[in-house]
Amino acid sequence: MPELTDPVAVTQALIRHASVSPDPGPAQHTLAAMLEALGFTVVSLPYGEGAERTPNLFARLGTAGPHICFAGHTDVVPPGAESAWAHPPYAAEVSDGILFGRGACDMKGGIAAFVSAVARCVEQGGVPGSISLLITGDEEGPATYGTCKVLEWMAEKDQIPDYCVVGEPTNPAAMGDMIKIGRRGSLNAHIVVEGVQGHVAYPHRADNPVHKLLSVLTALRETPLDNGSEWFEPSSLQITSMDVGNTATNLIPATAEARLNIRFNDLHTGAGLKGWLETICRQHAPTARVSVRISGESFLTAPGPATDHLVQAVQTVTGRTPKLDTGGGTSDARFIANYCPVAEFGLVGASIHKVDEHTTLADLETLTVIYKTFLEGVMA
Amino acid sequence: MPELTDPVAVTQALIRHASVSPDPGPAQHTLAAMLEALGFTVVSLPYGEGAERTPNLFARLGTAGPHICFAGHTDVVPPGAESAWAHPPYAAEVSDGILFGRGACDMKGGIAAFVSAVARCVEQGGVPGSISLLITGDEEGPATYGTCKVLEWMAEKDQIPDYCVVGEPTNPAAMGDMIKIGRRGSLNAHIVVEGVQGHVAYPHRADNPVHKLLSVLTALRETPLDNGSEWFEPSSLQITSMDVGNTATNLIPATAEARLNIRFNDLHTGAGLKGWLETICRQHAPTARVSVRISGESFLTAPGPATDHLVQAVQTVTGRTPKLDTGGGTSDARFIANYCPVAEFGLVGASIHKVDEHTTLADLETLTVIYKTFLEGVMA
Repeated sequence: MPELTDPVAVTQALIRHASVSPDPGPAQHTLAAMLEALGFTVVSLPYGEGAERTPNLFARLGTAGPHICFAGHTDVVPPGAESAWAHPPYAAEVSDGILFGRGACDMKGGIAAFVSAVARCVEQGGVPGSISLLITGDEEGPATYGTCKVLEWMAEKDQIPDYCVVGEPTNPAAMGDMIKIGRRGSLNAHIVVEGVQGHVAYPHRADNPVHKLLSVLTALRETPLDNGSEWFEPSSLQITSMDVGNTATNLIPATAEARLNIRFNDLHTGAGLKGWLETICRQHAPTARVSVRISGESFLTAPGPATDHLVQAVQTVTGRTPKLDTGGGTSDARFIANYCPVAEFGLVGASIHKVDEHTTLADLETLTVIYKTFLEGVMA
Repeated sequence: MPELTDPVAVTQALIRHASVSPDPGPAQHTLAAMLEALGFTVVSLPYGEGAERTPNLFARLGTAGPHICFAGHTDVVPPGAESAWAHPPYAAEVSDGILFGRGACDMKGGIAAFVSAVARCVEQGGVPGSISLLITGDEEGPATYGTCKVLEWMAEKDQIPDYCVVGEPTNPAAMGDMIKIGRRGSLNAHIVVEGVQGHVAYPHRADNPVHKLLSVLTALRETPLDNGSEWFEPSSLQITSMDVGNTATNLIPATAEARLNIRFNDLHTGAGLKGWLETICRQHAPTARVSVRISGESFLTAPGPATDHLVQAVQTVTGRTPKLDTGGGTSDARFIANYCPVAEFGLVGASIHKVDEHTTLADLETLTVIYKTFLEGVMA
């Protein structure tokens, strides 16, 4: 077992498990052993069957309040062609103060920094409250049998924390850039318009579904969803595909379809946007079929005492004031927000999902100190 | 050889050659023999090589003016599954006064009616002017080595007629419905917009080509081309395909493309519309690539003495006044219009390009009498 107060050694131990999503398990066994060594009670919570089987763990140290939880994932995205990597993705090589490997910053490095922060607290006699970890093996995949299932178990067992920090790499360029206090919701829609096929020379005998779809999409684009809210940028609608597949130049096709994604802020709900899409379709293409999948609602933990402690910790350690942001993609924080206040802060994300993913040793140490400072502050 | 004054027998003789485009030749040999029997000088004018080899013929009877030409084609579209036909496509069966077969009305029946009209004129001592036939073996295909090549030869040999009648089936429902005096032009365009691929959550880091293409297409649809002209309906723009092919819901694609067709009247030229398309693209998607193919310019033979004689012949024989029309698809008349006045009149087109293509024996006789009446009138 590595020296647990050393985030570099802990990160290396985790990277050396090739835990492409869903994590096959051993990375979490390694983590569980470390947490048990620190005094945590670890519960293994696998969900799903067969190829979907997802290892998860919940670990808690102490029972007193306040209860602060750290959430994260041991699974990683695939490395692609390993020959494209200058440093093998699972070797966890250190070169010139930089640690390379898949998951270095997304987010085995974040987990390691938290483990080391807790190890240093334990070394110094522990904290007044209690600390837990909610770790899933499927955050990069469908996430069906991950964080959301563990939260159900936690609610049932009365283990919902007072505050949760997700250790995703939130800093765009340097430590101290950004804390995420919410995320936009995400909705995918598929619109299919049926018309009547015919010869282009006789459009009055046909009914061109392309033109109707065009009207729908133009109406959707011309209606601004909003101008942003206190903590959110304006919502964004992106048409990601339009497909007809008609290669005959003299033919009006029978069907046209489009796909779009909406990233929406706290002025909307998925259901409200679904209704809006259906109304626009009814107006411009009454026979259109619209199917909508809401992959996450927007959420926000408005700044309060715990987030203030996180901001102060970042300021104290880095000398910089982090932006409180709600942009970017979704994360498992969307599930956690249904149960308790949540914020996200971790390493620098510039190299995630790329070849030669890496973090500096300095950033790992900085993050460890920030987590420790935060735990001490919020529990004082 | 059939009795040449009998359009039914002549049509049957032509249908029994399976002359799917490009006509392999024997149908034209049969026609040439008939024309020679009537006193025509027949010139065989094959163009193209290999699979593109196209038989054509030019035949002329007499040298005096006025010179009236009949234009048509011996090639036919494929029959599809012959088992779907109640009457075999090349058997030329007659049942209950109806003649069935591929080409019955498009347009071996039209050729036969003209041959029989001339045969009846010859029987009665001939006509004061001269008569010619311009027959191609590729009107249904690319038409590269057909009518346009024969016209070049005719111009070179000083054989351009004073007036030409194309025997295409112009009547939508009944004999006497419609004479075509022009046709719209046709232009196909392919628009490709390149953008910058990216994650839908960060649209400011990408450049969505779908949105730009949408703006281009909406601008094209929102600008009416015209309100029609004296002899033409308004021009029509139909978007026939939009294609992106992006199946990832979280991805802004790199490329989007669309295809469209414009059927345009005599207020436009293909070059003018190409310039208009390019201007709209420059305004809404500066990097768009536009490729344009003009498959035919619009043309019109404004009503004059010869067309008046054709109208009168239709009125005399059918008791109905034909609509002078410029709608529908293109025909080889677009080539002929570059050399001389041209109109189109033939059988009823309702069954063309379908299984069990057919014409009534009564319509064949009516068309024969119309052509004869026209020849007598225009040459009087």
